[in-house]
Amino acid sequence: MNSFGKIFKISIFGESHGESIGIVIDGCPAGLPLSVDDFTSDFDRRRSGATGTTPRKESDVPHIRSGVFNNFTTGTPIAIVFDNSNTRSGDYSKLRETPRPGHADFVAMKKYGGFEDYRGGGHFSGRMTLGLVAAGVIAKKLIAPVNVRATILEVGGDSNIQRAVEKAVAEKDSIGGIIECRVSGVPVGLGEPFFDSVESVLSHIIFSVPAVKGIEFGSGFKAARMKGSEHNDRLVSVDGKTATNNAGGINGGITNGNDIIFRVPVKPTSSTHQKQHTINIKTGEMVDLEIEGRHDTCIALRIPVVIEAATAIVMADLMMQSQLIPRIFSER
Amino acid sequence: MNSFGKIFKISIFGESHGESIGIVIDGCPAGLPLSVDDFTSDFDRRRSGATGTTPRKESDVPHIRSGVFNNFTTGTPIAIVFDNSNTRSGDYSKLRETPRPGHADFVAMKKYGGFEDYRGGGHFSGRMTLGLVAAGVIAKKLIAPVNVRATILEVGGDSNIQRAVEKAVAEKDSIGGIIECRVSGVPVGLGEPFFDSVESVLSHIIFSVPAVKGIEFGSGFKAARMKGSEHNDRLVSVDGKTATNNAGGINGGITNGNDIIFRVPVKPTSSTHQKQHTINIKTGEMVDLEIEGRHDTCIALRIPVVIEAATAIVMADLMMQSQLIPRIFSER
Amino acid sequence: MNSFGKIFKISIFGESHGESIGIVIDGCPAGLPLSVDDFTSDFDRRRSGATGTTPRKESDVPHIRSGVFNNFTTGTPIAIVFDNSNTRSGDYSKLRETPRPGHADFVAMKKYGGFEDYRGGGHFSGRMTLGLVAAGVIAKKLIAPVNVRATILEVGGDSNIQRAVEKAVAEKDSIGGIIECRVSGVPVGLGEPFFDSVESVLSHIIFSVPAVKGIEFGSGFKAARMKGSEHNDRLVSVDGKTATNNAGGINGGITNGNDIIFRVPVKPTSSTHQKQHTINIKTGEMVDLEIEGRHDTCIALRIPVVIEAATAIVMADLMMQSQLIPRIFSER
Amino acid sequence: MNSFGKIFKISIFGESHGESIGIVIDGCPAGLPLSVDDFTSDFDRRRSGATGTTPRKESDVPHIRSGVFNNFTTGTPIAIVFDNSNTRSGDYSKLRETPRPGHADFVAMKKYGGFEDYRGGGHFSGRMTLGLVAAGVIAKKLIAPVNVRATILEVGGDSNIQRAVEKAVAEKDSIGGIIECRVSGVPVGLGEPFFDSVESVLSHIIFSVPAVKGIEFGSGFKAARMKGSEHNDRLVSVDGKTATNNAGGINGGITNGNDIIFRVPVKPTSSTHQKQHTINIKTGEMVDLEIEGRHDTCIALRIPVVIEAATAIVMADLMMQSQLIPRIFSER
Repeated sequence: MNSFGKIFKISIFGESHGESIGIVIDGCPAGLPLSVDDFTSDFDRRRSGATGTTPRKESDVPHIRSGVFNNFTTGTPIAIVFDNSNTRSGDYSKLRETPRPGHADFVAMKKYGGFEDYRGGGHFSGRMTLGLVAAGVIAKKLIAPVNVRATILEVGGDSNIQRAVEKAVAEKDSIGGIIECRVSGVPVGLGEPFFDSVESVLSHIIFSVPAVKGIEFGSGFKAARMKGSEHNDRLVSVDGKTATNNAGGINGGITNGNDIIFRVPVKPTSSTHQKQHTINIKTGEMVDLEIEGRHDTCIALRIPVVIEAATAIVMADLMMQSQLIPRIFSER
Repeated sequence: MNSFGKIFKISIFGESHGESIGIVIDGCPAGLPLSVDDFTSDFDRRRSGATGTTPRKESDVPHIRSGVFNNFTTGTPIAIVFDNSNTRSGDYSKLRETPRPGHADFVAMKKYGGFEDYRGGGHFSGRMTLGLVAAGVIAKKLIAPVNVRATILEVGGDSNIQRAVEKAVAEKDSIGGIIECRVSGVPVGLGEPFFDSVESVLSHIIFSVPAVKGIEFGSGFKAARMKGSEHNDRLVSVDGKTATNNAGGINGGITNGNDIIFRVPVKPTSSTHQKQHTINIKTGEMVDLEIEGRHDTCIALRIPVVIEAATAIVMADLMMQSQLIPRIFSER
Repeated sequence: MNSFGKIFKISIFGESHGESIGIVIDGCPAGLPLSVDDFTSDFDRRRSGATGTTPRKESDVPHIRSGVFNNFTTGTPIAIVFDNSNTRSGDYSKLRETPRPGHADFVAMKKYGGFEDYRGGGHFSGRMTLGLVAAGVIAKKLIAPVNVRATILEVGGDSNIQRAVEKAVAEKDSIGGIIECRVSGVPVGLGEPFFDSVESVLSHIIFSVPAVKGIEFGSGFKAARMKGSEHNDRLVSVDGKTATNNAGGINGGITNGNDIIFRVPVKPTSSTHQKQHTINIKTGEMVDLEIEGRHDTCIALRIPVVIEAATAIVMADLMMQSQLIPRIFSER
Repeated sequence: MNSFGKIFKISIFGESHGESIGIVIDGCPAGLPLSVDDFTSDFDRRRSGATGTTPRKESDVPHIRSGVFNNFTTGTPIAIVFDNSNTRSGDYSKLRETPRPGHADFVAMKKYGGFEDYRGGGHFSGRMTLGLVAAGVIAKKLIAPVNVRATILEVGGDSNIQRAVEKAVAEKDSIGGIIECRVSGVPVGLGEPFFDSVESVLSHIIFSVPAVKGIEFGSGFKAARMKGSEHNDRLVSVDGKTATNNAGGINGGITNGNDIIFRVPVKPTSSTHQKQHTINIKTGEMVDLEIEGRHDTCIALRIPVVIEAATAIVMADLMMQSQLIPRIFSER
């Protein structure tokens, strides 16, 4: 339930305001150079602090608890644990009977019978993505020179990112955004024809990233309004290159050697400084709700590196399935 | 690779122009009434023949080879096999060196080293969805009164379906469309918080349906342009009902008791009666291509029942994981 | 539940007296030569007819319904179906309320609520092993020159096989036996250190063979009475060869390059021509039971080829996990 | 590879002399009372220190890093980490080129290309079983009143345990033993007919316990020398009780309501104070080997609680698959 992958396999654990969160990565080849410094750059991209992101300073130090010896992976499971700190549990306990709109408060209570750790979203918190980014760092090293890059296309419907965020901050509201991800240098033949199409496995992990509302590959929703004669990508080279890329790099679920391209809409942060309404689930009475504390105005700004990580994890798993990454690592 | 599900588990096999296609369903509870007649209605909806669909008459008779005894499921694997007939292999062999644009011809050859059954798309054929629809029939019976319904929203950008198809037929081109699926009567608490979110497992199977280019839940891509104050669904009842349904029935990956709603764009059929271009992958020379034979002008018309089946399969699996369907079936 | 394997993956279906039994093999590399004749030799070894085996003539013709094209595997799922014939359902219906000792009659009724196909053991029948042998034939071709060979060590406690069987036939009773299996040419490094030790995956599949009561590797139960100084296998060559093979070719769950050796006890056939006792599970009354029909005096005689098949299936899967068998087959 | 289970699912990580070892338990129901004290009793049984066990004082304090809140399980993954301490890495580095007989040194080096953490057996160490015992503690609470109990039958071929151990200590050699495990209060109908027979899943996890050489259920190897008329267990009660229990509580892979009984031989500890021989794998020269440090004379003494844990984990998973343990825990 909390794990993903067939050969390069990850398992996630933890709660936002519990003792720790973490990830176990099983199936990583032996012999990959790995040190704590490798995580810095991607962790910085995920970290909050810029305009439009929460000022909460999270503890992002990765404790590698197993699977690395003398700065190389050993081939056995890599456990990476992050301690939680700077948590203010008091902010959350009073919300217990008044589920916050847009959050998982209500469903968590129903699913886990009230035993869930409800503080700060608990296991549903965006903080869980830190483990995903850590696994992504490792995956990116494995798949190189295959390259994954995700960028923000727009936030609040505006491609002028900074301006849109400042406007939302001024309005004390939150905004969403659209992220595009591109994978280049993709080998032909990854993926499986039916249930494990590349779109299937990518969308599976992408929808585990909180706040994602959809995904489209290549021409995506536009394809529904195109004619076959327009949409078909004409083959122009014996290695599979096509004149256009409406397929998003995938035919019949299998990579065709062109860039994989997909886009993902991210909803506006559910917590805002606006007054909202909900009900008390014990009494059924409607109540006003003001969510105090620190919120991201635009969580979409922090998600590109998470999308990259998720994508790299899938690429590593698919490439291992196709025997393109050996069990004892050696650079290609 | 060709299987899906955790408890209600399906495995698919076959090729379009081989001896047969089929599906094995493992984990279906014992005691579900099942006969060949149960499949008729959904198979008719999938079948070709109407305007805009191929006139090929496929053999859709389900041979139940195991797992049913005295018209009840036994609790052991149900194998359903469909014989292939009315195939014209000669239509395909000459295309061997000139991959059809938009099809899996090129990637299949690369992935399987030329050993693939290339006739009529082989294992990549839309005919494979017949097994999916069969499993969907069983799943729908298991999850009742939970109800799944998919409909066409538009084809070729036009909600006047018949007119749009006739126009495309006249132009000898193909068109795509958008399908909306709605699940009603959904229990609260299905799905898992991280990798097996309801969106993750639904999108996983939906992207195994040929020609699907994307998926969006609830407000979907529109969410990226909404503010938090607009997007949040206000809780109005202690059973989870919300005033709006921008979440598409899912919070934090878990069903919230409102209808699950998602939309799927379907690309225009790749085979058209238009002249196209490709290259000969042996010589590298550009060649003209006219794909003879029988084509669907708008494959989207046949896909709603496939989307329904895929969705019902996921619902059955999730409900069994939540112990809402007993291992020995009894109507709720 | 009815499937096994990670990359070379098999799924089994069917009932002894239903329409058919069969197997689906997913993950087999493309390009392996395969024809119906390949199955003859191993099917003959499994077939009944010799002294000590049932005279029932089973229909052992393999119908390859998918996954093979022009006598080579395609890389997509291989479905092999066997039609049932020569069944005498009447023999079984009257046993419905008086479960046969040693058989699965009672547990099947409880597990499936009476919906199970009870005729001839149904899904629990030894006939199910025919699919396993078929998959074994394919696995053996994949792993060559790695060789798997299982033989009978003793039946009824006697290594003079023919004599022991004739004695049991004369006594109208059944007898068990011990089978030894040896895998030679094994690469070093197969298996995983913890839950997927080679012993773990081998024993997992071996215990799915009906009538198997145990398994021991190398020195096995004798090891419990040996001293460390006696038991340790001394390394004598840089490629891993050891002076003795108490380890049975496996250290820490991983193959060490020596032959894998294990032994398996097979219980005496439960159905005998002796009068037995059971109870009527409706009335609770004790009843005498005479099981008419055709029985194997010594089912162990037919099991070596099944053990071989199961072992070869595991070896194929482990070797594919270790990337020793390419996804497009080429002889080594 | 390092995980086990379908619904109650465990993943293991760590190395003997690395920073830590640990386990993640996914799928545990919410609402189970759990505190650190619950682990004490079983950890004590596993701990070394008595005659015949190593005097090494291991750090057995369980750090529950996630999944428990206010002393109840939350329903999300439970991560339990154990810090390593009291390690003497210096003892091991010099053994690098001279693999110890009976250990995994040689296969680990080959499998992981020399990148493995070779200190103290690394990921192959018996210390890894601490995580298994921790998961077993939780599983035992879930399955109660189903009860699992493993005991030593004999060590060094002698049922007078203390005397046999003292003799071996005096001889500076190591000895093996036989453990019997019994599960009582077992519901009828657990397990699956083919690949996931109860024997299959139990043996799978039991063989992941280091030093186990075999397993036999019920009459086990003796069955091979019994006649059918002797071996068949006669049904004496409508709830499945039988007059004898040669089946070991399992028919056709399914529990029959009688006690599950199996026996496991444990090999003598590979490390002894005797002088041994191996080769230098770089030079090929034969070398004498004296393994200094702390050894268990009879590792079998510490294994019963590990076998119990492994068995309880399987029972929990099987009972959850049969919906006998609800997703929100409540005592039965």
